[in-house]
Amino acid sequence: MARKIEVAYSPNLFDLHSDGESMVVVVDIFRATSVMCSAFFHGVRSIRLVEQIEEALAYKGKPEIVLVGERGGKEVEGFDLGNSPMVYHDGTYKDKDIVMTTTNGTLALKMAAQNHEQVLVGSFLNLSTLTNYILSRKENVIIFCAGWKRRYNLEDTVFAGALSHQLLSDGFETDCDATKAANDLWSVAEQDLATYLSASSHYRRLSKKGIKKDMEYACEIDAAPCLPILSNGVLLNLEA
Amino acid sequence: MARKIEVAYSPNLFDLHSDGESMVVVVDIFRATSVMCSAFFHGVRSIRLVEQIEEALAYKGKPEIVLVGERGGKEVEGFDLGNSPMVYHDGTYKDKDIVMTTTNGTLALKMAAQNHEQVLVGSFLNLSTLTNYILSRKENVIIFCAGWKRRYNLEDTVFAGALSHQLLSDGFETDCDATKAANDLWSVAEQDLATYLSASSHYRRLSKKGIKKDMEYACEIDAAPCLPILSNGVLLNLEA
Repeated sequence: MARKIEVAYSPNLFDLHSDGESMVVVVDIFRATSVMCSAFFHGVRSIRLVEQIEEALAYKGKPEIVLVGERGGKEVEGFDLGNSPMVYHDGTYKDKDIVMTTTNGTLALKMAAQNHEQVLVGSFLNLSTLTNYILSRKENVIIFCAGWKRRYNLEDTVFAGALSHQLLSDGFETDCDATKAANDLWSVAEQDLATYLSASSHYRRLSKKGIKKDMEYACEIDAAPCLPILSNGVLLNLEA
Repeated sequence: MARKIEVAYSPNLFDLHSDGESMVVVVDIFRATSVMCSAFFHGVRSIRLVEQIEEALAYKGKPEIVLVGERGGKEVEGFDLGNSPMVYHDGTYKDKDIVMTTTNGTLALKMAAQNHEQVLVGSFLNLSTLTNYILSRKENVIIFCAGWKRRYNLEDTVFAGALSHQLLSDGFETDCDATKAANDLWSVAEQDLATYLSASSHYRRLSKKGIKKDMEYACEIDAAPCLPILSNGVLLNLEA
């Protein structure tokens, strides 16, 4: 029997798709899952996800620990880094352990982990690595878009389209309208991804903060091959 | 200041868009809102929405009353009609008062009415009448897709794209990614709407029940011009 794929567009819709058995790919293109992929590709050893700022601050000053995160798109006082994927490129954070909290991404990862054993991190930066890993397994797949403040967003949807397009070309099936719509949007967007996503509301929101380069980087397909997988609240890179 | 438009893809997302002030257009293409438009265009006088089957049965046998509805796509015992938009075409139900309960459409209409004064019924069948009415008003607009069992669906989204495309061409603005995505899907679908929607999961679900003609009819733009508006749990046709 063919493997199935579904897409959940928001944390408010995930329960309707969750079945306790599928692999779940969590997506937050602008920016948590792009940051995670960049960090791992550039040598970060682990990323611990915490929900509260206070929880993260408890790790402050410990050896090899780096505090990373944002609230409502803003840096957090006392943290080492905000939510840019670019700061890892020079290898400064190689072999470090990150403690991270973000508005949308952490929430979705924690939700997925409640009922699913295999929770993976997806972004355009690790698209092929992720696809190949999924194809090597046997479970059905749910792509879980973190969205923005629980709302539908364009960039996570287009990524869901890119990934599901690959999987459907490789024998997966779907009876999920959200997957079909994401596929059609991917076929509109793929010619010029960065331009297409520059119309998204979150892109425009972040552009005003002058971090356009971060977002262009997040649209670079396979720029940071890695395979972050969640285990007991900590992300590790299976491709390391 | 330009009027704004937003799209909510599911009852699970409506609260994120609801503001208590906008006009709300409720959409359930396959099939509640298409049935409502067909009924009004062919002379039905009013449609009372009830949530429970028992509530509807209490009206049974009263003069001019017709019981209409479905549960999980099936006809209800003791009701006069199921959920086909075609049965009104010969005028049999002219001047009748319908009592209706459906799985998805009634739920969305009732949700919208909790916080919004102006709740309208939208379908491809009354697209232009609806657009012209909205353009004659001053409020912002939320298009509320009823979905299927609270899930995202393709046909309601494509209708949201068709309507928002008209409004955006006429001076409306949006900062809502769901609206942008719906617009892009409409531009993919509009060349051959019925064929495009024949890939939707609900179309295929209903096709198996042999009601393909109902669904082709639901794709006919402006085939049943009317303007159903909700007032105290009862729909009336403002265009009558």
